[in-house]
Amino acid sequence: MRYEESVLEGRNPVLEAYRSGKTIDRLFVLEGCHDGPVQTIIREANKKNTIINFVKKERLDSMSQTGKHQGVIAYVAAYDYAEVSDILDAAKAKGEPPFIIILDGIEDPHNLGAIIRTANLAGAHGVIIPKHNASGLTATVAKSSAGAINYTPVAKVTNISKTINELKKEGMWFVCAAADGQEMYKLNLTGPIGLVIGNEGKGVSRLVKDNCDLIAAIPMKGDIDSLNASVATGVLAYEIVRQRLKA
Amino acid sequence: MRYEESVLEGRNPVLEAYRSGKTIDRLFVLEGCHDGPVQTIIREANKKNTIINFVKKERLDSMSQTGKHQGVIAYVAAYDYAEVSDILDAAKAKGEPPFIIILDGIEDPHNLGAIIRTANLAGAHGVIIPKHNASGLTATVAKSSAGAINYTPVAKVTNISKTINELKKEGMWFVCAAADGQEMYKLNLTGPIGLVIGNEGKGVSRLVKDNCDLIAAIPMKGDIDSLNASVATGVLAYEIVRQRLKA
Repeated sequence: MRYEESVLEGRNPVLEAYRSGKTIDRLFVLEGCHDGPVQTIIREANKKNTIINFVKKERLDSMSQTGKHQGVIAYVAAYDYAEVSDILDAAKAKGEPPFIIILDGIEDPHNLGAIIRTANLAGAHGVIIPKHNASGLTATVAKSSAGAINYTPVAKVTNISKTINELKKEGMWFVCAAADGQEMYKLNLTGPIGLVIGNEGKGVSRLVKDNCDLIAAIPMKGDIDSLNASVATGVLAYEIVRQRLKA
Repeated sequence: MRYEESVLEGRNPVLEAYRSGKTIDRLFVLEGCHDGPVQTIIREANKKNTIINFVKKERLDSMSQTGKHQGVIAYVAAYDYAEVSDILDAAKAKGEPPFIIILDGIEDPHNLGAIIRTANLAGAHGVIIPKHNASGLTATVAKSSAGAINYTPVAKVTNISKTINELKKEGMWFVCAAADGQEMYKLNLTGPIGLVIGNEGKGVSRLVKDNCDLIAAIPMKGDIDSLNASVATGVLAYEIVRQRLKA
């Protein structure tokens, strides 16, 4: 989905966005274009670790709303990202063991928004999302979050597994959601915890799962495979809330 | 939202749909139109208790996709509705105390679909929705339910309070979700139970709330007001699952 307010077309608007420090979620550049200004944009993008998609003119033309893309279209994040350290600081400031929700590739912006909303109400200190193959903080996400995006920090990282391993050094434990795990009610989910939720279709990726300490299964009685990703996050987050209240 | 597959325009298609027993969720009829065929459609609609909206020509014209509405446009349910008795029978067939999810005005089809999905996996025997001011079983609902709509019966009733009172005579208890209730972990949610979830914006209506035996609150730690309705349903449904597993 595309939102006018968060799409920039043309060389100057995109370059200005970079220079003013805005976060570009995705950048589309005309394949084989070696013009000076476009090269400058690519350099800025590389500096900021933006994902660059080199595409054919037909693709850019079809994406363009203004008809004046000049070989570059950028999707700007509707909200600013936090750093992982901001999330840990938020936990510390409240005097609580960190509780972080880590999303391994949620693609649907409505799900991401609903999860940020849940994170806020369940008392999680922040949400971590990956840079690649996932929804960023778009206008739809902001709307679906019902305002929670203004309170709950969301950090964007290059490699979820690496971030998990770094946070383990801070004393955190990680539990991921998967059907082949242990029933969630039988696990100890208290203490400094990261709850890892996988992609809507594919679930948690192999490597991320291997890096988790626990695998939690939501009991399933029905005929279909899995809960909606934001519902599953809510159910697991509230099992953590229940155990924290009881502890 | 409108879906070609579930919209019928013109007198013959609409009349045929009624005669073949299809469920029309909503019927739009040209204001002041007294033609014979239109009167026949209105009679059929009244027999089947369809909600009729009498609208001006401009409104019908703007809704029309074919430009040939002839004064009538009907939204057909993408799936068949069950009866409340079918839901009770499903519980009986499984030898379980009934567990029904009752939706007091869910408007967003994505939420309704996600809730049917949750009902299926949490082992609820069915979902009850109201006829008025709520999403019916559209194509979007079917998609969001991830197939659960094929397994979990959904009944549509004229008056939620009346249905609750009838089900109480069958020995059921009702718990509704509201912020001013008791913390859900402290309530006994075992036995034959109906879980009542309110509208996305307005919550559970006064009359329905008064007819519930218990009011359950999900603990909220955050800065915003409420969870997404389908997430809240998931969290409460799984508290019922947890208590049933323990019982």
